[in-house]
Amino acid sequence: MTGAADATAAAANIGVVGLAVMGANLARNLASREGNTVAVLNRSPERTDALIAEHPEAGFVPAYSYEEFAASLTRPRTAIIMVQAGAATDATIDALVEVFEPGDIIVDGGNAFFPDTIRRERTVRETGINFVGAGISGGEEGALNGPSIMPGGSDEAWATLGPILTSIAAVADGEPCVAHIGHDGAGHFVKMVHNGIEYADMQLIAEAYDLIRRGTGKSPAEIADVFAEWNRGELESYLIEITAEVLRQVDAETGRPLVDVILDQAGAKGTGAWTVQTALSLGVPVSGIAEATFARSLSSHPEQRAAAAELPGPAETFAPLDETAFIEDVRQALYASKIVAYSQGFDEIRAGAAEYDWSIDLGAVSRIWRAGCIIRAQFLGRIAEAYTEQPELPLLMSAPYFADALSRGQAAWRRVVIAATAAGIPAPAFSSSLSYYDGLRAERLPAALIQGQRDFFGAHTYRRVDRPGTFHTLWSADRSEVRL
Amino acid sequence: MTGAADATAAAANIGVVGLAVMGANLARNLASREGNTVAVLNRSPERTDALIAEHPEAGFVPAYSYEEFAASLTRPRTAIIMVQAGAATDATIDALVEVFEPGDIIVDGGNAFFPDTIRRERTVRETGINFVGAGISGGEEGALNGPSIMPGGSDEAWATLGPILTSIAAVADGEPCVAHIGHDGAGHFVKMVHNGIEYADMQLIAEAYDLIRRGTGKSPAEIADVFAEWNRGELESYLIEITAEVLRQVDAETGRPLVDVILDQAGAKGTGAWTVQTALSLGVPVSGIAEATFARSLSSHPEQRAAAAELPGPAETFAPLDETAFIEDVRQALYASKIVAYSQGFDEIRAGAAEYDWSIDLGAVSRIWRAGCIIRAQFLGRIAEAYTEQPELPLLMSAPYFADALSRGQAAWRRVVIAATAAGIPAPAFSSSLSYYDGLRAERLPAALIQGQRDFFGAHTYRRVDRPGTFHTLWSADRSEVRL
Repeated sequence: MTGAADATAAAANIGVVGLAVMGANLARNLASREGNTVAVLNRSPERTDALIAEHPEAGFVPAYSYEEFAASLTRPRTAIIMVQAGAATDATIDALVEVFEPGDIIVDGGNAFFPDTIRRERTVRETGINFVGAGISGGEEGALNGPSIMPGGSDEAWATLGPILTSIAAVADGEPCVAHIGHDGAGHFVKMVHNGIEYADMQLIAEAYDLIRRGTGKSPAEIADVFAEWNRGELESYLIEITAEVLRQVDAETGRPLVDVILDQAGAKGTGAWTVQTALSLGVPVSGIAEATFARSLSSHPEQRAAAAELPGPAETFAPLDETAFIEDVRQALYASKIVAYSQGFDEIRAGAAEYDWSIDLGAVSRIWRAGCIIRAQFLGRIAEAYTEQPELPLLMSAPYFADALSRGQAAWRRVVIAATAAGIPAPAFSSSLSYYDGLRAERLPAALIQGQRDFFGAHTYRRVDRPGTFHTLWSADRSEVRL
Repeated sequence: MTGAADATAAAANIGVVGLAVMGANLARNLASREGNTVAVLNRSPERTDALIAEHPEAGFVPAYSYEEFAASLTRPRTAIIMVQAGAATDATIDALVEVFEPGDIIVDGGNAFFPDTIRRERTVRETGINFVGAGISGGEEGALNGPSIMPGGSDEAWATLGPILTSIAAVADGEPCVAHIGHDGAGHFVKMVHNGIEYADMQLIAEAYDLIRRGTGKSPAEIADVFAEWNRGELESYLIEITAEVLRQVDAETGRPLVDVILDQAGAKGTGAWTVQTALSLGVPVSGIAEATFARSLSSHPEQRAAAAELPGPAETFAPLDETAFIEDVRQALYASKIVAYSQGFDEIRAGAAEYDWSIDLGAVSRIWRAGCIIRAQFLGRIAEAYTEQPELPLLMSAPYFADALSRGQAAWRRVVIAATAAGIPAPAFSSSLSYYDGLRAERLPAALIQGQRDFFGAHTYRRVDRPGTFHTLWSADRSEVRL
C-alpha cells in the first residue's frame, strides 16, 4: 500500500470505477451531493488525473490501484462500475472481489444483459460481497444532473446503497427517480424494457415526422414547430422535445436541415433486440418494440434498399385535403400507438417478474421513469396512477384513462394507417400497434384455424370452446374426433 | 453382450433410437427402402416390441440396450436419434458415445436449437465420432412417406449418411429433398427458419380466411372452396390444401364447422420464437415471422383479451361492394405477403451462413423444400430459379419473377390492408409485410431523425449523406458539428 493510499484511507463513502463520460459524470453528480465523498479509479491513471484537475470542486479521492481504491472506502465499501458491458465488466468485478470483503457492495451501472447480471450476482454472492446490477438511464446529461436509476440486488445492499443513489437521482414531483426494483437481475431487466420502449417511442415519432413531411411538404423547421406544440399537450416528453430541437437544426456546411444531411441508417446498441428476444421467451407480444427494432435494421441494409428501389408504389401522390386535420390525426395516432408500446413493455416486466420471481411494483417503475431517463414524460404519471389504483391490472390499455384515450383516438389512428398504406409510406410501428389493438379486442381470432392446421399436419391437438379437455381429429383416418 | 445381440450382430446399416410416432415412422420409412436394414432401440422395450409386432414387414433388428444396438450396426455405425429435444437428446448422445467408435455417426433428427447442435457437434467430435444435426420436416406423414431433410455435420458423415437419407427423402421433380446444408448446426438452423416461415405462412392464411369470413359472411365450407380454388394457382401449397380440409370439417357433436368449435388460442413449440430471436441477433428484419409469432401469443392471453373486449372499433360494418373482387384482392395480398415472408427467411439463412461460416446454397435449400415439408409449394421452385440465376441475389423480392408478382399485386395488397384497418379486423402479418415492402423501397427513411435523436441524447454520432466519416453535433454546447 502506497503512502497516498494511507493518506486517503477510508475517506470516501462511495467509489466509481471507469471514468469515461458516463462514469465521470456520475462521479461528479455523486460528489456534488452533500454527505458524499467519492473515490475514483480508472484503468489509465491519466484519465483519473485529468478528471481531478478539471473538477477540483468535487474533492475526489483518487486511487491508482484496486488496493488503494478499497482502502479509500468506508465500510461497507460501495463501488459503482461504469465500464463497457461484457468482458471489461467481468474483469472489473473480479478485481474488486479480490480487494473487497463480505458485506461490501459492487454495483454494475452499465447496460448489462440481465441474465449476465443474474449470473454475476450468484457468483459474487458466494464471497459474501453484495452485487447489484443497476440500470441507469438519462445519457451523459442524466448521469451528471440526475438519472433515473433502477437497481436490483439484495435488500442488504439496498440499505446502504439506497440513500446514496437517492442523493443523485432525478426528482419528479418531489420524489427521487430511484427504487429497489427487485433481486439480482430485476434492475437491468427493467432498464432493458425501458430501452425497448424507447426504441418504439423513437420509431413512432419518426413515422409521425415522415408522414407529416411527405403528406404536407412542410419543412423540418416547420415540423419542429408541430412537435414543440405537441410537447405542450398529452404527448409532453423529452423525446418529443428533442425531436423539435433536432428538426430545427441547420447544417452549417450546406445550409440544409441537418436531418436531411444525416445518413438514414439507424444504429442500435442491442437493448431493443434483447427486449424483443426476452419477450419472445416469455410469450409476450411486444410487436411495437419489435417493429421499431426491425425498422432500424431494415434501414441499415443499403444493398437491399438499392435492390428494392425499383419496386413500385402507389400511382397517386399523397396530399391530405386538410393539413391541419391530418396533423391532428397523426398526433392522435402517435399517442394511441405510444399507449400500446408502453402497455406491451409493462406486460413484459410483469411476465419477467413472474418468471424470475421478482416482486416488481409496476407503479414504482413508472414513477421513477417520470424524470431523468430518456422516455421521461407526463404520461408516466398516468401509468403510475393506473397501477396504483389497480396493482393487478391485466392490461394497461384497459385502464380507464388509457381506454378513454384509445377510444377517442382510434378513428384518427385508422385514418393515418390508411393514409400511409394508400400513399406507400412505411409506418410499421403505427400499423402494427393498431393491429395489436384490433387483435386484442377481437371476439374471435383466426387462431382457431391455426390450431386446426397444427392438428392436421402435426397432431398438435386443440381445445374446444364448449368443454374442457384436449382433442385431436383423426385427419388421415375417418376424421372422427378423439379426446386425449 | 447378450445372445440376441450376437445373433443380430452387424446386420443393420442404420439405427433409430426413440420410437415415438416420428421415430417409428422414420424407421418404417427407412426399412421400406431397398438396401436398408434398420436397428431400433427405445427406452421402454414394450414400444420396441409393439413396433416389431405391428410391422413384421419392416424386418427391424430390435435392440434392448445401447451395447446391443451398437453391435447390430455395420461400420461406420449410423444412428438417428428421434427423442425429445433438450436433456433427453443429451442423455441419448452420451449413451451412444459410450458404445460407438471413431468414424461412427450420430444423427439428431429432432428439433434442436442450432446453438445446441453446434455445442454437441464440438463435444462429440473430440471422440472421433461424427455428430450430425438434421432438420426433418413433414410431420408424422412426412416421416413415414418422405420428409424434407436438412442435415448439417461433416463431409465425412455426409458420405455415409447421404445415400441413406436420400433413400427416404421426399422427391420433387425427380430430385430427392435432402442436401448437405453445411457444417455443424447449419441443418438445424435452416430447419428453424423453415419453421419460422411456416408460422408466417399460417398466419397469413389465417388473416385471409378471417377477412373473407368477416367481409363476405361466407361459411367456412364456402371459404374452403375458395382455398381449394387458390390451390390450383400460384398459391398452390400443402398449407393452402389442408386449410381447405380444415375449413370443410364439420364437428360431429354440434354440427357446427370445426373451426368455430376450436378454441381460438394458438399454441407454439418455440421454433418461431427462435427464428425471430436469432434474426434479431443477426440484424435481419423478419417482421412477418415476428408478427405471426406474436399473433399466436396474443391469442393465448385470454385475460388480456377479456380486458380489451370493451375497447371500441370502427362504427361502420364491413361489407365490400364486390365480393369476388375483394376475394381476389385478398388472394393477391396473401401472395405478396408470402413473398415477403420467404424473402425475410432467406435473408436470415444468408446472414446465418455468413455469421457461422457455413457455405449454404440457397437454391438447394429452396429445392429440398419443394416436397416433404410443411411449407412445400410450387412457389419454392421459383425461389430455386431465382437463386440459381443469381446466387448472390441481395433480396429475393427483387428477383424478376417476384418483383413482377409484387408489382402486379401491390395495389390489391394495399386495398386489403386498408379494408382491414377500416373494418377493425386485425391483419398484423399482411400490414407488417406491406410496411416492410414500402420501407425497403423508400428513397429516404426517417431513420435519419432517429440518428439525430440518438446523437442528441447519447452522443451516438451519425454519418452524413455527402461525405465519409463519423460526426457529432455538440447539442449541449454551441451546436457545431465535430468530425470524430
